[in-house]
Amino acid sequence: MSSVIIASLPESLPAFIAQIDPSAIAVLVDNHTYRHCYPVLKSILPKHTLIRIRAGEEQKHLATCQTIWDALTRANFDRHGLLLNLGGGVIGDMGGFCAATYKRGIAFAQLPTTLLSQVDASVGGKLGIDFQGLKNHIGVFKLPDAVLIDPAMLATLPERELRSGFAEIIKHCLIADAEQWQKIRRLELNEQNWPELVAHSVAVKERVVAQDPTEKGLRKILNFGHTLGHAIETHFLEDSRRRLLHGEAIAAGMVAEAYIAFKKGMIDETLLTEIEEYLFAVYGRTRLKDEDMDPILTLTLQDKKNRAGQVRMALLDGRGSCAFDVPVTKAEMKQGLFYYRG
Amino acid sequence: MSSVIIASLPESLPAFIAQIDPSAIAVLVDNHTYRHCYPVLKSILPKHTLIRIRAGEEQKHLATCQTIWDALTRANFDRHGLLLNLGGGVIGDMGGFCAATYKRGIAFAQLPTTLLSQVDASVGGKLGIDFQGLKNHIGVFKLPDAVLIDPAMLATLPERELRSGFAEIIKHCLIADAEQWQKIRRLELNEQNWPELVAHSVAVKERVVAQDPTEKGLRKILNFGHTLGHAIETHFLEDSRRRLLHGEAIAAGMVAEAYIAFKKGMIDETLLTEIEEYLFAVYGRTRLKDEDMDPILTLTLQDKKNRAGQVRMALLDGRGSCAFDVPVTKAEMKQGLFYYRG
Repeated sequence: MSSVIIASLPESLPAFIAQIDPSAIAVLVDNHTYRHCYPVLKSILPKHTLIRIRAGEEQKHLATCQTIWDALTRANFDRHGLLLNLGGGVIGDMGGFCAATYKRGIAFAQLPTTLLSQVDASVGGKLGIDFQGLKNHIGVFKLPDAVLIDPAMLATLPERELRSGFAEIIKHCLIADAEQWQKIRRLELNEQNWPELVAHSVAVKERVVAQDPTEKGLRKILNFGHTLGHAIETHFLEDSRRRLLHGEAIAAGMVAEAYIAFKKGMIDETLLTEIEEYLFAVYGRTRLKDEDMDPILTLTLQDKKNRAGQVRMALLDGRGSCAFDVPVTKAEMKQGLFYYRG
Repeated sequence: MSSVIIASLPESLPAFIAQIDPSAIAVLVDNHTYRHCYPVLKSILPKHTLIRIRAGEEQKHLATCQTIWDALTRANFDRHGLLLNLGGGVIGDMGGFCAATYKRGIAFAQLPTTLLSQVDASVGGKLGIDFQGLKNHIGVFKLPDAVLIDPAMLATLPERELRSGFAEIIKHCLIADAEQWQKIRRLELNEQNWPELVAHSVAVKERVVAQDPTEKGLRKILNFGHTLGHAIETHFLEDSRRRLLHGEAIAAGMVAEAYIAFKKGMIDETLLTEIEEYLFAVYGRTRLKDEDMDPILTLTLQDKKNRAGQVRMALLDGRGSCAFDVPVTKAEMKQGLFYYRG
């Protein structure tokens, strides 16, 4: 298990670097984190190489990896180098993948700057990039040498980003902690206690990942809401005006998949209503047109949890409890989507 | 540890597939193995996808990976698929890398068809591709689910290929088995007992890799001859008329590095003479021009075993014994190259 440290970066980072004792350091940033987060780092870091890329999911592909590998090569990075990934999920997933594959693997740390990446992407060692429009299609499992979470980073975040990250917190409560779910669903977005929720989410995720690092079984419960959520996110990726943030798509996926669980008799109507009311209150309802339905359903066939062409979902089977590898038909998914659409 | 099985493919392959029980099978071949080796496989395999690429080290790059990932995607390969890499080191290294990164990792087996890949590349889980002319610059460590070595494959091999693979056998004897070294150096190339030597080399390599899978320490001894050897191989890669096979370059590297070990007082003159006489007898002497020297020396700076710009070598410190992480200066490397040149 890699260590997750929740503390201010000026506190956690120097100690981590002293422990790794790297031969060289590089920092990967995007436009946003260069402006808002890198200044803090710059003042506390020794000599380092800065690698700056453009922000956005549409950068998360092989061509950007080539830019990153190339920058490390030009800086004569050897296998004892250290890469610090300062940013959200795209920076962490892609920077981690580049570090894990540069000279067959150099040290790297995730410095997540968004709520989403603090409670999800940075923990658990899933690294990768999109390929031919398929999310995280190419990648590896590898734990970072450290995850350094600085709650102060959230201060600069737009509310929409905060709301997106909150979806994974909601998911962690729904699949693993009924009590916490009852707590958060009584508060609005801007009433939540972020430092406490970040620590809670990281703990839930670490506990699950420790039992099943490469997602052969239990870890699949972390995918609740993600089979349809990913498909919705991918579908809208091509349309810049309708594009959704990850958490916004997952929120939609959770409602649709909760309905599938309800129809299968796995959860009762009370829980379905709780989920649906809270998620619509926080996220609203994304408009799905008739012509969106088939492409979204087709995209679920590329889900990494499938087996031999059959879609398998993580579905709630109680408040704070989740089953995995549940076979779901196309008809059931369609019902879920139509239920979400209302 | 993955299992290495030395047996005919019609014997070993069906049992392996039954054990893995994959949702789909793909076979990666190049022009040569398509013609000479695939027919045997085709007759014993169930339904599968054939992925055919051009032969040669110059195919071992990202663009070819994209072709392979694309073929798996189009065949709707899920995470329970199996990729069989039928070929030499290029097929094994690149196919393994593609399998290890497709959907964050599917099952794969190495079916090495050259002597070189049977005694070296297929064992030990080093996977990767070349990047910007740098050998294996991008890759991961991951053990295949099986290595199925069929000695019958060697029958179709040209003598030059056999001689190239023999260099790694010689290396394994020199670094780990003095007795075996005394045996092989008394025989000419075509007098060697290949099945026995393959089993011996695999055993040496597996023993070393088991103790240090990710090359933090001991495993580096497998790089004897490779710091200068790789640099020589890479340098000549650009010149199609002077291009060397891997083992031919490593043979040159072993002579030059044996001389460095001798100059450092790590081995005596008798051993240096033994090595040099045998290797020149089997491989001849590759001509190095004055203008080759500097580019070769510069290339050693990209060696993955370096630390902070300093070249570190695996150097013999006796007959059947090898040290690692020995700092070597540019001047010493130059002496080694000039000694080799004679």
